[in-house]
Amino acid sequence: MSEAPGDSLLYKQVAGKIQQLIQSGTLRPGDRIPSVRRASEQHGVSVTTTLQAYLELENRGFIEARPKSGFFVRPQIQSRMPEPRASKPASAVRAVSVGNLQSRLFEAVRMPGIVPFGGAAPGVALLPEAKLNRILASVARSAGERGVSYDPPPGAESLRREIARRALNAGSHISRDEIVTTSGGTEALMLCLRAVTKRGDVVAVESPAYFGVLHAMEELGLKALELPMHPRDGMDLNALESLLKIHSIAACVAVPTFSNPLGALMPDENKRRLVELLTRREVPLIEDDIFGELYFGAQRPRAAQSYDKTGLVMLCSSFSKTLAPGYRVGWIVPGRYQARIQTLKLTSTLATATLPELAIAEFLANGGYDHYLRSARRTYAELVDCMRGAITSAFPPGIKITRPAGGFVLWIELPKKVDALALDDLALAQNISIAPGPMFSATQGFRNFIRISCGHPWSPRIESALGTLGTLVKKLS
Amino acid sequence: MSEAPGDSLLYKQVAGKIQQLIQSGTLRPGDRIPSVRRASEQHGVSVTTTLQAYLELENRGFIEARPKSGFFVRPQIQSRMPEPRASKPASAVRAVSVGNLQSRLFEAVRMPGIVPFGGAAPGVALLPEAKLNRILASVARSAGERGVSYDPPPGAESLRREIARRALNAGSHISRDEIVTTSGGTEALMLCLRAVTKRGDVVAVESPAYFGVLHAMEELGLKALELPMHPRDGMDLNALESLLKIHSIAACVAVPTFSNPLGALMPDENKRRLVELLTRREVPLIEDDIFGELYFGAQRPRAAQSYDKTGLVMLCSSFSKTLAPGYRVGWIVPGRYQARIQTLKLTSTLATATLPELAIAEFLANGGYDHYLRSARRTYAELVDCMRGAITSAFPPGIKITRPAGGFVLWIELPKKVDALALDDLALAQNISIAPGPMFSATQGFRNFIRISCGHPWSPRIESALGTLGTLVKKLS
Repeated sequence: MSEAPGDSLLYKQVAGKIQQLIQSGTLRPGDRIPSVRRASEQHGVSVTTTLQAYLELENRGFIEARPKSGFFVRPQIQSRMPEPRASKPASAVRAVSVGNLQSRLFEAVRMPGIVPFGGAAPGVALLPEAKLNRILASVARSAGERGVSYDPPPGAESLRREIARRALNAGSHISRDEIVTTSGGTEALMLCLRAVTKRGDVVAVESPAYFGVLHAMEELGLKALELPMHPRDGMDLNALESLLKIHSIAACVAVPTFSNPLGALMPDENKRRLVELLTRREVPLIEDDIFGELYFGAQRPRAAQSYDKTGLVMLCSSFSKTLAPGYRVGWIVPGRYQARIQTLKLTSTLATATLPELAIAEFLANGGYDHYLRSARRTYAELVDCMRGAITSAFPPGIKITRPAGGFVLWIELPKKVDALALDDLALAQNISIAPGPMFSATQGFRNFIRISCGHPWSPRIESALGTLGTLVKKLS
Repeated sequence: MSEAPGDSLLYKQVAGKIQQLIQSGTLRPGDRIPSVRRASEQHGVSVTTTLQAYLELENRGFIEARPKSGFFVRPQIQSRMPEPRASKPASAVRAVSVGNLQSRLFEAVRMPGIVPFGGAAPGVALLPEAKLNRILASVARSAGERGVSYDPPPGAESLRREIARRALNAGSHISRDEIVTTSGGTEALMLCLRAVTKRGDVVAVESPAYFGVLHAMEELGLKALELPMHPRDGMDLNALESLLKIHSIAACVAVPTFSNPLGALMPDENKRRLVELLTRREVPLIEDDIFGELYFGAQRPRAAQSYDKTGLVMLCSSFSKTLAPGYRVGWIVPGRYQARIQTLKLTSTLATATLPELAIAEFLANGGYDHYLRSARRTYAELVDCMRGAITSAFPPGIKITRPAGGFVLWIELPKKVDALALDDLALAQNISIAPGPMFSATQGFRNFIRISCGHPWSPRIESALGTLGTLVKKLS
C-alpha cells in the first residue's frame, strides 16, 4: 500500500477518477464497476480507502450497491437535469413581508391527510422517535426535582458538553461554557437578530433565504439586503464584498452548509473568506447550521464559525431537522455576544424545557445520535435523489432542480408562466402542501419557484402527489 | 336550616362575624371557638356552611385546627404587623432598566447550596414532580410520532381543552380555540407586548411590578408609566383614570390576582372597572394570572378577562408556579389579537414543546391537578403565614410586611437607611438569595424593599437563613 496512514483526501482522488470515467461515458449506466479488492490494486490504495471512495460516489449518486452483486453505475437522469442559475437579486435594501405566507404554510401542514412537501420538518417515520421517547421516559422517571425545575441560561450542562464535543467535527473548538441552549432553532435565530440589530437596520441575507429568518426580520422591523446565491457554492462573495462597501450592514445571516431552500454548500475557502470579509467591517455573522449534520459526502462540512478569531460569528443550530422538532431544543454559540444572548433568553422564554434537553443529551452521550445519523444521511441522500427523478418525470420539460449536497429540500424553477402562489392554491385543494418561492424572498420574488421537502419516506402516496403536482404545473404553464 | 341552597356568600358572613369577635378581642388567642355543630345552631346555618366559614378563617390566619381538639384562635402577631403603605410612583413616563438585576438574580439562584428566597419559583419539594414526571414518561412511551413532531400554534388541543374548562372557575367563558399555548409565561407576556406595542410606546405597569415584565419592556424599548398600588386591593384605579387622560398609553400590564411582589388581590368590582376604563380608551390589558390558582380564600378569584366584552384583554398564565417551571408551558387567551399572537409565536419559538404539553393535559384531565392544588393552596397559606412570623421575629422592629391573599411572595419594607442592593450583596456572601426592591421598578426605586419567596418547605435551614437576613438588616439599619 503506497498511501500514508490517515491521508483522508486519498479516497476523494480515487472517487474523482471513477466519477470522470462515468461522466465521460467510459463507464455507462448499468455497468458493473470493479470490485473493491480489484480497484484497490488498480489504484494502489487500501481496501478501506476504496470502500470510502465507493461510498462517496454512492452518496454523490453516481453508483449504487446491489445486494450480493457489487457496485453499478446508476442511471444519470437526474444529473442531466439543469440546476437553476445563480440568483440576481436587486442590490437594494428592502422591507420584508413574508409572515402571511409562513402562517399559511403552517396552517396547511396541520391539515389532516395533507402531503407535506411544504414544511422542512423531517418525516417522523425517518426519526428515531421510539428510541428518543423511551430515553425521555426514562429520564423523566429518574430526574425527580430536576425534571420540573427551571434550567436557566445557558441551559443543561450535560447537553452543552455533548454539543461542544460534536462541534469538533465541524472544526469548531468551543467549550460547553460557550454554548447557550434555546427553545429550538427559531428562538436561536431570533435572539441573535435581537442581540445585534435594532429596528430599521439592514441585514444581509441569502437570496433565496429561509423564510423563518425573513419573518423574524419582518417582525423586528429590519430591512433586507439580498445577496446573490449560486445553487451549489452558495453566497456570491464578490457581490457581498461590493455591497459591504456601499451599505451599512448590521448583521449577515447565512446558512453556509446546505442552505435553505438551495441546499448549497459553501466551499471551505469561501467560508473562510466570508468570515474575513465580515470581520474586516465588524459585521456579525449569524450562521445557521441546522442542516450541517445531514451531509451526503464523506465528511462533516466545516462551520464558518471555525474560521472565526474574534467572536463575531454566532453559530445557531438545533435538533429539529435531525431528531425531534417537537422537543424544541436548539442552541447558540454566541461568541462575544454571550452575555447579551443569555439576557435576551431571559426575556424570551426564561429557560429551555429541561427534560427534552436532558433526554437529547443522553441520546448523544450514549452514541445513539451518531448511529442514527449514519443511516439518516444515506436515507436523505437517496430520497433527494429519488424525488429529483420523480419530479423530472412528472413535471413538464424545461424545469430546473437543485442538486443539494446535504439536507432534504429541493428548489425547483418552474416555467416562467407558472405562478407558485396559484400552484399552491391548486395543490392545497388536492391536499398537497408546497412552499411557494415568494416565501423565500424579502419582496416575495421567485414567483415561479417552489421548494419541495424530501423528508418523508418514499411511498405510492408521495409518488402520486408528485404526479398531481406535475399535472398542475403543466396546466399553469 | 334557614339558608337558601347554593347561597355561596353565607359562609363569608359567618366568617366575618367570628373574625370581628377575634379582632375586637372578645375571642382571644388560644381560646377555643365553638364546635362546628354548635356554631351551626347559633348562626342558623348548615354544618357545611360553618365548616366553610372555619376553613376561610383558617386560611385568613385567624383560627387553627388542633387535632381532636377543635378550632382555636391563633396568636395574632402577624396581623398586627403593619403592611407597607400604598405606593406613590411619580406620574411620569420612564425608560426601563432592570435587566442587569434579573441576570444577577438568575445567577444567584443557580449557585449550589443557595437559600433561594430570591426567585419566585415554587420549591420543588412542594410540587407533584414524581406524579407529573411519571405521566410524562408514560406519554412519551405512548406518543410515538406525535411526541417528536412540531405542535404548531395554537398548540396541543387536549391541553387547550383543559385550560378552557378550568377558565370557567375564574369566570372566563372561552373555548379551546381561543387559547394559544406558549413556552412558559415569559413567552406569553413577551408575545402580548410585541403584539400591541412598538419601540418608544408607553406601557402602564404596577408599582412595584414583576421584573420580568419590566425587563421585557426594557428589551423592547418601551417606556413605563408606573401606577400606584395598594398592598391589598392592588392598582389605584382613580390614578389610572387620571393618567389615561394625560398620557397616550399603548397597553396596560397588570396582575389583578395576587400581584407580584405585593400579593394584592383586586376586588371583583375593581377588576370590572379596570376593564371598563381601558376599554373606553381602547387600551389593551395584558392580564398576568400566573398566581391565580394559588388563592388562600374559599373561591377562585375571577380573572379581569371575565369582564371583557370586546376582546381587548389578553389573559396570560402558565403552569410554572403550580406544576413544573422546567416544563415551560404557558398560554395566552389573546382575544382580538389571536391571529397576531399566533404569527408572533412562529417567529419566537415556532411551537411549544409537545410532550410537556401533552403530559400536563393528562394531569389536568385525570384530576391530579385539582387534587394537588387543594393541598398546595393550604401549604402556601401556611408557609406565607409562618414566614411572616419568622421575619417579624428576626428582623428589627419597624419593618412592614404584606399580607397576601394568595401566591407565595412577601414584600417587605425595611428601615429607610437599608439599601436592598447592599443587603443583597451581604446576603449572597452568606449563600442567601433575595430579590431587592429596585428590580420591581422601572427606575430602580424601592431601594429599602425586598421580596422574599415563601415557596419552599419550612426547615431549620430556612429559619436560620431568615435569622441571618435579620442580622444583616439590623447591621445596615
